[in-house]
Amino acid sequence: MSSISNNERAGVLIHALPYIQDFQGKTVVVKYGGNAMLNDELKKAVIEDIILMSCVGIKTVLVHGGGPEIEAMLKKTGKESRFVNGLRYTDEETMDIVQMVLCGKVNKEITALIQKAGGKAIGLSGVDGCLLKARRMKIEDLGYVGEIEHVDISILDTVLNADVIPVISSVAYGIGDDEGKALNINADIAAAKIAAAIGAEKLVLMTDVRGILRDVKDENSLIKTVERAELNILKREGIISKGMIPKTDCCDIALDGGVKKAHIIDGRLPHAILIELFTDEGVGTEILSGN
Amino acid sequence: MSSISNNERAGVLIHALPYIQDFQGKTVVVKYGGNAMLNDELKKAVIEDIILMSCVGIKTVLVHGGGPEIEAMLKKTGKESRFVNGLRYTDEETMDIVQMVLCGKVNKEITALIQKAGGKAIGLSGVDGCLLKARRMKIEDLGYVGEIEHVDISILDTVLNADVIPVISSVAYGIGDDEGKALNINADIAAAKIAAAIGAEKLVLMTDVRGILRDVKDENSLIKTVERAELNILKREGIISKGMIPKTDCCDIALDGGVKKAHIIDGRLPHAILIELFTDEGVGTEILSGN
Amino acid sequence: MSSISNNERAGVLIHALPYIQDFQGKTVVVKYGGNAMLNDELKKAVIEDIILMSCVGIKTVLVHGGGPEIEAMLKKTGKESRFVNGLRYTDEETMDIVQMVLCGKVNKEITALIQKAGGKAIGLSGVDGCLLKARRMKIEDLGYVGEIEHVDISILDTVLNADVIPVISSVAYGIGDDEGKALNINADIAAAKIAAAIGAEKLVLMTDVRGILRDVKDENSLIKTVERAELNILKREGIISKGMIPKTDCCDIALDGGVKKAHIIDGRLPHAILIELFTDEGVGTEILSGN
Amino acid sequence: MSSISNNERAGVLIHALPYIQDFQGKTVVVKYGGNAMLNDELKKAVIEDIILMSCVGIKTVLVHGGGPEIEAMLKKTGKESRFVNGLRYTDEETMDIVQMVLCGKVNKEITALIQKAGGKAIGLSGVDGCLLKARRMKIEDLGYVGEIEHVDISILDTVLNADVIPVISSVAYGIGDDEGKALNINADIAAAKIAAAIGAEKLVLMTDVRGILRDVKDENSLIKTVERAELNILKREGIISKGMIPKTDCCDIALDGGVKKAHIIDGRLPHAILIELFTDEGVGTEILSGN
Amino acid sequence: MSSISNNERAGVLIHALPYIQDFQGKTVVVKYGGNAMLNDELKKAVIEDIILMSCVGIKTVLVHGGGPEIEAMLKKTGKESRFVNGLRYTDEETMDIVQMVLCGKVNKEITALIQKAGGKAIGLSGVDGCLLKARRMKIEDLGYVGEIEHVDISILDTVLNADVIPVISSVAYGIGDDEGKALNINADIAAAKIAAAIGAEKLVLMTDVRGILRDVKDENSLIKTVERAELNILKREGIISKGMIPKTDCCDIALDGGVKKAHIIDGRLPHAILIELFTDEGVGTEILSGN
Amino acid sequence: MSSISNNERAGVLIHALPYIQDFQGKTVVVKYGGNAMLNDELKKAVIEDIILMSCVGIKTVLVHGGGPEIEAMLKKTGKESRFVNGLRYTDEETMDIVQMVLCGKVNKEITALIQKAGGKAIGLSGVDGCLLKARRMKIEDLGYVGEIEHVDISILDTVLNADVIPVISSVAYGIGDDEGKALNINADIAAAKIAAAIGAEKLVLMTDVRGILRDVKDENSLIKTVERAELNILKREGIISKGMIPKTDCCDIALDGGVKKAHIIDGRLPHAILIELFTDEGVGTEILSGN
Repeated sequence: MSSISNNERAGVLIHALPYIQDFQGKTVVVKYGGNAMLNDELKKAVIEDIILMSCVGIKTVLVHGGGPEIEAMLKKTGKESRFVNGLRYTDEETMDIVQMVLCGKVNKEITALIQKAGGKAIGLSGVDGCLLKARRMKIEDLGYVGEIEHVDISILDTVLNADVIPVISSVAYGIGDDEGKALNINADIAAAKIAAAIGAEKLVLMTDVRGILRDVKDENSLIKTVERAELNILKREGIISKGMIPKTDCCDIALDGGVKKAHIIDGRLPHAILIELFTDEGVGTEILSGN
Repeated sequence: MSSISNNERAGVLIHALPYIQDFQGKTVVVKYGGNAMLNDELKKAVIEDIILMSCVGIKTVLVHGGGPEIEAMLKKTGKESRFVNGLRYTDEETMDIVQMVLCGKVNKEITALIQKAGGKAIGLSGVDGCLLKARRMKIEDLGYVGEIEHVDISILDTVLNADVIPVISSVAYGIGDDEGKALNINADIAAAKIAAAIGAEKLVLMTDVRGILRDVKDENSLIKTVERAELNILKREGIISKGMIPKTDCCDIALDGGVKKAHIIDGRLPHAILIELFTDEGVGTEILSGN
Repeated sequence: MSSISNNERAGVLIHALPYIQDFQGKTVVVKYGGNAMLNDELKKAVIEDIILMSCVGIKTVLVHGGGPEIEAMLKKTGKESRFVNGLRYTDEETMDIVQMVLCGKVNKEITALIQKAGGKAIGLSGVDGCLLKARRMKIEDLGYVGEIEHVDISILDTVLNADVIPVISSVAYGIGDDEGKALNINADIAAAKIAAAIGAEKLVLMTDVRGILRDVKDENSLIKTVERAELNILKREGIISKGMIPKTDCCDIALDGGVKKAHIIDGRLPHAILIELFTDEGVGTEILSGN
Repeated sequence: MSSISNNERAGVLIHALPYIQDFQGKTVVVKYGGNAMLNDELKKAVIEDIILMSCVGIKTVLVHGGGPEIEAMLKKTGKESRFVNGLRYTDEETMDIVQMVLCGKVNKEITALIQKAGGKAIGLSGVDGCLLKARRMKIEDLGYVGEIEHVDISILDTVLNADVIPVISSVAYGIGDDEGKALNINADIAAAKIAAAIGAEKLVLMTDVRGILRDVKDENSLIKTVERAELNILKREGIISKGMIPKTDCCDIALDGGVKKAHIIDGRLPHAILIELFTDEGVGTEILSGN
Repeated sequence: MSSISNNERAGVLIHALPYIQDFQGKTVVVKYGGNAMLNDELKKAVIEDIILMSCVGIKTVLVHGGGPEIEAMLKKTGKESRFVNGLRYTDEETMDIVQMVLCGKVNKEITALIQKAGGKAIGLSGVDGCLLKARRMKIEDLGYVGEIEHVDISILDTVLNADVIPVISSVAYGIGDDEGKALNINADIAAAKIAAAIGAEKLVLMTDVRGILRDVKDENSLIKTVERAELNILKREGIISKGMIPKTDCCDIALDGGVKKAHIIDGRLPHAILIELFTDEGVGTEILSGN
Repeated sequence: MSSISNNERAGVLIHALPYIQDFQGKTVVVKYGGNAMLNDELKKAVIEDIILMSCVGIKTVLVHGGGPEIEAMLKKTGKESRFVNGLRYTDEETMDIVQMVLCGKVNKEITALIQKAGGKAIGLSGVDGCLLKARRMKIEDLGYVGEIEHVDISILDTVLNADVIPVISSVAYGIGDDEGKALNINADIAAAKIAAAIGAEKLVLMTDVRGILRDVKDENSLIKTVERAELNILKREGIISKGMIPKTDCCDIALDGGVKKAHIIDGRLPHAILIELFTDEGVGTEILSGN
């Protein structure tokens, strides 16, 4: 970066000013996942983005899953997976592994990284303070897999008001027949539901694609902005398809719950969050609530 | 319990009143461990004690380890342990397991149990908010085993002021050469250091013995009260020996740090905490600071 | 009580836990009267109950009258009473005695007893902070006897927020033609009106009977629970009759004002309040609001 | 007052301004007694003075006794007094009367009068919140007559911070052998001790004389200002004698406790408090702490 | 004033008491102008009135213009005025002078005078904290003359809550085409709009006449009280005419915005504000909102 | 700036992160003056810097003078200056001009500019809230020129706690013989004294030179860092000379008062403040307190 003059540096900071002014005091929920969790350089960049956001007064909530690490641990313990209609069945032993990896390993590692970089963070799960209450999925019996029924943000408020960054792993507190048990939940949906419950300004989903592509084979066909109302049309046209469908559904949940904008960004680019938030063009697709 | 009349019930409650009045608004740190963590009935009783303490206005902090569960997980993953002078060496892979089991399994399970019983709890580790900062042990190289250097109670204050019970697993945030790494620490010492840092009224250590016994073979030889100053005499006389030495050392750390009383109680008795706190005789050994 | 083991003691405390959890932070208004005010042992038990309630986080308000002590003082001063349709007429001189006995003797005595037992209390009357504003009764001219027209709970809020127990004597601040004069009011009604105004969870009326009896001659015919809507039926059936009518009317006032439950308990039993609040069966009749 | 023009009225208000500015936010303790309690017009004037003080931001505490009313009640009940060395012995029955008259009659009457005049007041005694803790007098056994040992101002702080005027009757909460019993105390001393404990700016003692007179027979010989250090000289010279001795002793207690000025004023003049506080000459004797 | 006895002084203060009680905690906006700004004695009297109001707990806001001083400065700088339909056109250079005189001279002088008299004040303009946002007048192009479009009272709240008196000069923050420029505004209207926005109890306009006169030539024909609804009738009858029209229009704006009473008082009388507020007859015309 | 990629932009922001983390919650006092006040582009850049500082959580205080504008106004009004030993004598008429220009023109213009750029600001002088109390200079009679004797930061605390940027003009509130009069003070010294009184982290003086130059003719001889203790040596060596002497004296005042660092920066460079604060090399000379 030595080629950038101090003048230019000042210019860049000033250029970010209106965005900073816009987001100050607002809440942004970031779903952290995919390649950005695996690659050390990307990981470092995400942590820096989160701390910078927090420094400029954005109340930042980080939600994460941890698929690959769970895979690795299941393999290490020799646990064989059972599949139901092609979906993994989460039995009690598997749930134990899931919880240990998410809450005990991934969550604490991210928390430690933020603090190593000078931030103040606290690692939580949906169990803590009953932040996320869930029941087993009704559509299909996949074992200890839950659907979020209630979000209790009081613990988040406590943490955010103490100027601490909450890092949340996607494990819920079971209610009903599973009262007090841990249930595995989808991290994207957890982020979307939390964003809605806390009245977030933005939901940012980190993915391993550029965003919504008009032509899935052409990375240059990125749709930069889309109205929430257009999502259904894009689905019908097959432009939103496969893995992009649950992503946009999550955005829909958040926007429906009052979130202003949802962003699907490319986690493979370093500082994608910062660029999406603090520059004019951004790097992914933003979905507007239309309100 | 049907044999106890309502009159007697009222009497019991009233009998507890002066103790409740004494401890209101004070902080009590409980080290939870041993059999009380393995037996489901004992576990339930500990949780009830903790909630009752919290209900009558005692700021209650629960610190736990989880030896047996770590053992089990190490076995399951086929991890073989290396020993140094008879002490287990904690290599990186082992530390990973330790952290996962403590922070991801035991910690969240206790947190969930408290909430299932109607309390509000949050599961933390020494990593969160850099509550416990540690460096590797200097006396002997045991790998990722740490000595606590600094306790930052700000996160505990935040949690306790929100009337939430903090449940803390004995994993520390590494500083110095291990900046940001997790270090395994002794849960008794963690509890003692936290009790001192937070200005607790009491430290309660749950063990699997009756307390300090004058004759280790005679459970009726329990020493009910001892002055801190007498600990050294009892050590010299061999009355405090073997496993009781580190326990009393922890009490010493807490009392030295300003804690008023330390209690070594028998976790094998249901509701041992409650009985120690709210009845005249108590169930274990109390060590007085002498201040 | 030496026959109750520590184990049983712990059991009793834990048994009370769900009730404590339920009532924490809620307000309970207790009308203290009858035999429980005359017998020293009963008096002590009431004070202990009140302090225990306060200790477990229940905002407790004590309202009292003092008929027998007023009688005694009237006799001592040689004041002869005039009766109107069988009801005592409260002339200015009588009112003076009433006020002195209630505010100066009974009220301060209860306040002192609570403090002697380790609580913090403050003795108030309806005059203080214009807590109870009343006009002379309109139905019949009984002299300085008032009907409560307005309850100003600001002084109660101040006192309760300072964690102090308010003890209130049933004397009101006169308005209208008697602006600034003291008026004698019914203590049961005062308690009911205060309970409604402060949004209490419960109103507890201490009486000298078991509760509502299906057969007034049979103490075993106690009706343990009754819906507010059933009160009229019971009155029509003559089951609620004589002295029980004004008691249930007071409950009705409180329930109508939003109080959740009203209890008519037997003040002749020691710790009747505690037993009613913290055990399964209770000791008297509870009247449910049905909301 | 029709002869005073609006111009003159404005002038008077403006003239009071520097005094108001000086006393804002400060605490003034007024001992109310003597003729000013007996004469209705004087009573009204005192109440108005107190409310005005409170209105201009002076934290005003009113302490009162009630000798004549106690006399009257003792006579009415036919209670005969026993004397010890010429001092009345307060037996239990007498103490009952004292407490009833002070706390139940005089205190509530003053409280009601303040509220009738538009202020907000609360009637307290030394029993409430254990404001005044006392032991029996040691010099001479006069029965239930106490010496103040400790002042707990927390209840006063609560009341003053709620912008309510505390009216305090001179009855204390007994400690030691008389734990929980009421003890009769001297109202002047109570006012002085409260003034010292609360860090008052001023103590104002209402008396039935002009102040300290150089020649007790000449009302024009009023000493307007005296240094605390001069009190002893004036005593030795016999200028301070008889009933003035305990009054100046009270002033001495208050000044010794940090109060800035003590005033001995003539309660027989309407609005004596106001004139002493808000005019240049004042009406009585002011005693300066000399600090 | 030596002819007024201390007794009479007390009487005057007590006489003012009910008014003080009425206005405590309420907000009063005073438009300061006319002769009262030119004459040193009158100026001093206004300052005293403002401080006294503030001392007795009235939240006082002072709004001022400064015509004569602007005139003088324009003359001194040799600036010649252009007129449009008989109204002065405020070009950029004139606006500069206006702003300097109002914000830099008059405003700071008043602020200093209040502080010299022992009050605490802060000088503001409509620019500060964007208190007054305005656009250029639309009816007629008079240059930098604005119409208030929005009042942002947050800065006033901050200042008043710190018990500081805000002194406001009638210069607004331009929006729209004049974003960030200063605009000259009418001080009476500024006071009326601020009074409405802040929910003031009263608006007091200082003028150089007695108030609304039934016969403009007869100072004794003062209309002391008028309902807002009657203003139109009085206009139609020609009783409100000429310079009184904009004054009553301002009152109308304030009353329409929820202010309870507006007062048109004679600034030529010393302490006119005090007399209007704290005496029975007052000195000018009060206009009642009729709500 | 189009040549800077988004990646580079992110890099610049991240690069600024540690500086932002360091300064968050700290106070920085900026003396704004010289060319940066005359050139519109520089002015805009300063405003942006101030808002960015405020946005990232730095409590920013702006102090300004306004020499050239005062000159211009004096000329415009035809006021001729008298000189005493080569220094301008500030007579009353001149002081009037000074105050009008500083408080009425420059101050409000800066305030408006900050708000136009999206910040929230309030324009103050040393008169407001008696922020700066001064007496006439004693060394030499220069008329209404003052020396600061006391800084009362309560008004600054109020403003900063409301997240508003205070803009302060260098006019003081006179005390002593000039009680209530305005006195002209040096803006650099005002900034230094305010920085010390408020416990600022930094004082930043904007000048029209590069900083302290080892060789005043060689702009490349900039001394980047100097210890406070070295200032005297540099003076003796003649390296600090002429106009740099009062500048470094101001820094000395601030550092002596507890400020951590003082910066002399080149206001002719756009965004000099930002570059000094948020980049490694900075642009001027920093003087370290050595504590």
